[in-house]
Amino acid sequence: MNPESYKRRNNILIINTKHYEKATGKRSYEFFAGLPDMNAFKGWEIDYAVGAYDLHIADQFPAKSFYSQHVDPIGYGAFTGKISIEMLVDSGIRGSLINHSEFRLNFETIEKVVSKARSMDFEVIVCAENLDEVTRFAKTGAPLVAYEPPELIGGNISVSSARPDIIEKAAAVCENNGVKLIVGAGIKTHNDILTSLKLGAVGGLVSSGVVLASNPAVAITSLINN
Amino acid sequence: MNPESYKRRNNILIINTKHYEKATGKRSYEFFAGLPDMNAFKGWEIDYAVGAYDLHIADQFPAKSFYSQHVDPIGYGAFTGKISIEMLVDSGIRGSLINHSEFRLNFETIEKVVSKARSMDFEVIVCAENLDEVTRFAKTGAPLVAYEPPELIGGNISVSSARPDIIEKAAAVCENNGVKLIVGAGIKTHNDILTSLKLGAVGGLVSSGVVLASNPAVAITSLINN
Repeated sequence: MNPESYKRRNNILIINTKHYEKATGKRSYEFFAGLPDMNAFKGWEIDYAVGAYDLHIADQFPAKSFYSQHVDPIGYGAFTGKISIEMLVDSGIRGSLINHSEFRLNFETIEKVVSKARSMDFEVIVCAENLDEVTRFAKTGAPLVAYEPPELIGGNISVSSARPDIIEKAAAVCENNGVKLIVGAGIKTHNDILTSLKLGAVGGLVSSGVVLASNPAVAITSLINN
Repeated sequence: MNPESYKRRNNILIINTKHYEKATGKRSYEFFAGLPDMNAFKGWEIDYAVGAYDLHIADQFPAKSFYSQHVDPIGYGAFTGKISIEMLVDSGIRGSLINHSEFRLNFETIEKVVSKARSMDFEVIVCAENLDEVTRFAKTGAPLVAYEPPELIGGNISVSSARPDIIEKAAAVCENNGVKLIVGAGIKTHNDILTSLKLGAVGGLVSSGVVLASNPAVAITSLINN
């Protein structure tokens, strides 16, 4: 409703716990208990994107910021196996990833979710796989687009060492549409984060590098401070 | 793993809470606290099919039986927004609906889930919309098929008053494949349940009639005992 609420002064680090065993279900409380709060680092905001079965723990960590890994364009009602923005808001969840490369949606669904989220002041981060998608999603009015270049997903190639040009182009597209860019793949080190910020992004989306680290809290601190 | 565990001596009533506001999220504990346990009625088993965000409450109600409304054919790992049988088993969940008319899957996915569930002694209930689907799904080796004739979904028409022949045919198909049939739509009254059992089903799948009732516990008791 209020576009001001979308304006961020801080950089953003989002940790996607995916469906990793050590961070989900009965283990999620212990996993998140050791991780930094939303405002633990000056100038940064730390967010955790969790599976639907773990959303309830937001209640137990009021100083941490939780996002959903997915949300459907529905409300409460006769929707088996679906999840609504209404329920996420009721549960203290600030926003949601949608269209992650592991959970792709069609464009019509993306538009519906973004439109509804805007009217509810709920923050949607739309994941994009290429520059064409970055452009299309930036025009939907989503506050944030996470760009996951397929050549950087899951591998050892980082944003700093490969393809800085595509990040720069994506950042320019986003800026032209009043949208913030998050780099959604290839963030391995503090240097990758710095490079992404220099190229025009406002932060990074990470997963296994933090979640599967022997000490996830240290991994987060290293990404931000090292 | 052990097919014996699939053999049921009791009839089954499954309550699908869908995404109804009064039964989900912060309200789910209070909602389920007033509802009957799995073995509250002689000769019957009561199961609740809940959304992923409510699965964690199974821990708080050890005498109740919870199913998931959906499960994906994946394990733990890099699967954003997905849910595995492994996590459901770890969370004390006995089984899952799949392919509900509100969450349709392709046949290949259904086969994968059923095959994996069998190897893990996890009970999958495959929803079917017509006799052809009942036949295809019965042959996958799923222990239970829930038949939701579209003409009975969501309306006021009940199994007793309309189309008993299609239930009878579905029951025969299931029996020929060693599969149990649940009637997934048109169960409004105790008489509908009795009719379904007479036609060869082992129970019913209900939703709004119970969940949206002013007193859901009374609604369940009426369906079984009235």
